[in-house]
Amino acid sequence: MGLDYRVKCCPDGLVTDRRRRIKVLDCTIRDGGICNDWAFDHGLVARVHGALSAAGVDYMEVGYWSDASAFADEAVGPWRFCAEGDLARAVRPGPMKLTTMVDIGRIRPQDIPDKSATVIDAVRIATYAHQLEEARRVLDRCLEAGYETFVNVMAVSTLPPDDVDRSLLKLAGSGVHNVALVDSFGALFPFHVRYLVHKYMNYLGEGIRVGVHFHNNLEQAFANSVVAIDEGVDVVDATVHGMGRGAGNCPLELLLFYLDNPRYDVAPILDLIEEFATMRQDLRWGYHLPYALTGYFNVHPRAGIDRMARPDRHQVRDMFEALSGRLAPRARGTG
Amino acid sequence: MGLDYRVKCCPDGLVTDRRRRIKVLDCTIRDGGICNDWAFDHGLVARVHGALSAAGVDYMEVGYWSDASAFADEAVGPWRFCAEGDLARAVRPGPMKLTTMVDIGRIRPQDIPDKSATVIDAVRIATYAHQLEEARRVLDRCLEAGYETFVNVMAVSTLPPDDVDRSLLKLAGSGVHNVALVDSFGALFPFHVRYLVHKYMNYLGEGIRVGVHFHNNLEQAFANSVVAIDEGVDVVDATVHGMGRGAGNCPLELLLFYLDNPRYDVAPILDLIEEFATMRQDLRWGYHLPYALTGYFNVHPRAGIDRMARPDRHQVRDMFEALSGRLAPRARGTG
Repeated sequence: MGLDYRVKCCPDGLVTDRRRRIKVLDCTIRDGGICNDWAFDHGLVARVHGALSAAGVDYMEVGYWSDASAFADEAVGPWRFCAEGDLARAVRPGPMKLTTMVDIGRIRPQDIPDKSATVIDAVRIATYAHQLEEARRVLDRCLEAGYETFVNVMAVSTLPPDDVDRSLLKLAGSGVHNVALVDSFGALFPFHVRYLVHKYMNYLGEGIRVGVHFHNNLEQAFANSVVAIDEGVDVVDATVHGMGRGAGNCPLELLLFYLDNPRYDVAPILDLIEEFATMRQDLRWGYHLPYALTGYFNVHPRAGIDRMARPDRHQVRDMFEALSGRLAPRARGTG
Repeated sequence: MGLDYRVKCCPDGLVTDRRRRIKVLDCTIRDGGICNDWAFDHGLVARVHGALSAAGVDYMEVGYWSDASAFADEAVGPWRFCAEGDLARAVRPGPMKLTTMVDIGRIRPQDIPDKSATVIDAVRIATYAHQLEEARRVLDRCLEAGYETFVNVMAVSTLPPDDVDRSLLKLAGSGVHNVALVDSFGALFPFHVRYLVHKYMNYLGEGIRVGVHFHNNLEQAFANSVVAIDEGVDVVDATVHGMGRGAGNCPLELLLFYLDNPRYDVAPILDLIEEFATMRQDLRWGYHLPYALTGYFNVHPRAGIDRMARPDRHQVRDMFEALSGRLAPRARGTG
C-alpha cells in the first residue's frame, strides 16, 4: 500500500516537527489579482475567504493598500485598495488573520491607518532592495500602528550575494516580525533555495520568522516550497490553483496535500477549483514557455506576459534568441 | 546579475561532474502517444526526430513494439507497433539512439526481431513487479538479439519496500544494462526519490545504469528529476512540453535548461512548442486536479483520465471523498 510506504520513506521525525510549525499564507486575491487587475467580485472573495477559513489556512492576503492616486479607479478592481467597505462585504471575523500588501512608492507611511480602524491584522511590505530606506519608514509606521509586519524583498534572484547580506542585516534590527524570500521571477532552483533559506535564517536571527513566496515559471514553485519546508521555514505562500502573476504560484491544494497535517482540511479548497480552472482558461497562468523563458533568463515576467497576449504566443524561438543575446557572452558559458 | 549569482550558489563541482554523465531519453512519441492513441502523423515524428537530433538528445523512444493481436489496427496509430516501414518514413540514421518499449503480456519473446533487422538500438521492457519472470524471458531474447536493454519496473510507489528489494535483486544478475525508477502514478516526492535512487544504485551495483521516469500529477516530475540528477542517476526521461499520460512527464525543455550543458541545444526543441501547445489544448495533459488527486492517493491515473473526459471535470470534491474513503481509516492518519 502506497501510504505505508510513504511513511516509511519519510526521513526523520525532525521534518515532521518542523512541518507542525509551518503557517500557510494564501495570497490568491492579491497575487492572483495581478492576472485580472483585481476585478474579483465580492461574492468570489467571500467564497475564497470561507473556504480558506474552513481549510484552516493561517493568513489570507486580501489585496493591496494603495494611494488613491496610484491607480485610476476604473483601471483596477477594489482589491487594489482594500477599502474597509469592500472588506466588510467579503470577509467575516474569525481566527484566520487577514493581510494586505503595500508597494513601496505606491503608499505613504502616513496613509497606513491605525489597526483599530481596519479588519486587517498584518501588513506585508513589498520592496526592492534599493528601496529599503523607504520600506523602513513604512515599517515603522506599521509597527507604531499595531500590525504584525512582513517585509518581502522582491527579485532576490537578481541581487549579488553581498546585497542580499546587506538587506538582511538592515532588516535584522528593524523590529519586523517576518521576512519572506521572494522569487519574483520564478528563477530559483532548490539548490538556490537551500542556500538562501540558510542565509535568511542566519542573518535574521531567531526572533524573525522566515517565509517564502515562489513563482512557477520553471515548475519549481511547489518543489521549492517543499525544499523550504525541509529547511525549516515558518511561513509558506500559496494560491488557489496556483493563480498568480505570469506562471503563477505554488498551488495551495498541493501544499496542503504535502503538509498532511490534520490542522488543515483541503476539501473546502477543492470546491473552489472549478471556478478557478475556468478563470485559468482565460487568464492563462500555469506552465507556458514564455514564462519558462523569463524564469530561466532571470528577468521580470513582463516579456512573458506580453508574449502570452499575442496570438503567436508559443512561437518562442525568437524570444529565446533575444534573451540569449542579451546575456552574451558571459552567461553563455564563455565568460 | 542573476547568472553570476546562480553560479556562486551551485553547491560543488561534484554535481557538475555528475551532470556531465547524464543521458537524456525523450519518450514523447511513446508516452505522449498514450494521449492520442499514437496517432502522430509521420511528418510530426520526423520533425520531433530532427529536433531531438539537433538538440543532442541521447535516446528517442519512437513507440512500442506490440503483437498484432494486442490492438486493433484501426484503434491505434502506427507507433503502437513501430513497423520498419513506418520508422523508415520518419527517422534517419544518426548518433541519437532509437528505443522502443515492449509491455509484458503484449509481446512474445520470439516476436522480438534480430537487431540486424531493425533501426531500433535499444528495447525498454515495461513490467510490473509481479511480471518479472516473464520480463526476464523477454530480456533474455533482447540480449540474445543484440540490443541495449532497459527494464522499467512500473508503479514502484505501490510496492512494499521488501518487494522493491526483491525486484532489484532479480534484475541485478540479469544482464540488463539499464533499470529505470518509474513513478507511473505521479505519487513520489523528492524524499521518496532520494531513498529509492539510493536503493536502486546499491542493489543494482555499478554495472547497471539507473534511470528515472516521472509523471507530473503533483507538479513534481521536473523537481524529482532535479533530485535524481543530484543523486547521480545516469538517464533521465523527458518529453516535449511534458506530453504524456495523464498529467504528463518532465518537460524536455526544462530538463535541458537545468542541465546547462553545451552538449545540448534547447533551441530546436523550442521550435516544436507551438505544435505541442496546440495539442495540449485538446489533449489536456498538465496540471489538473483530477490528476493531482490520483497522484496524491497513489492510484492509477485512469480515474483522472476518465474525469478529464467529462464536462464536470473540475468538480473534484466527490472524487476526493471517494478516494479518501477508499483509504480509510489507516491512510487518514488514524491507523
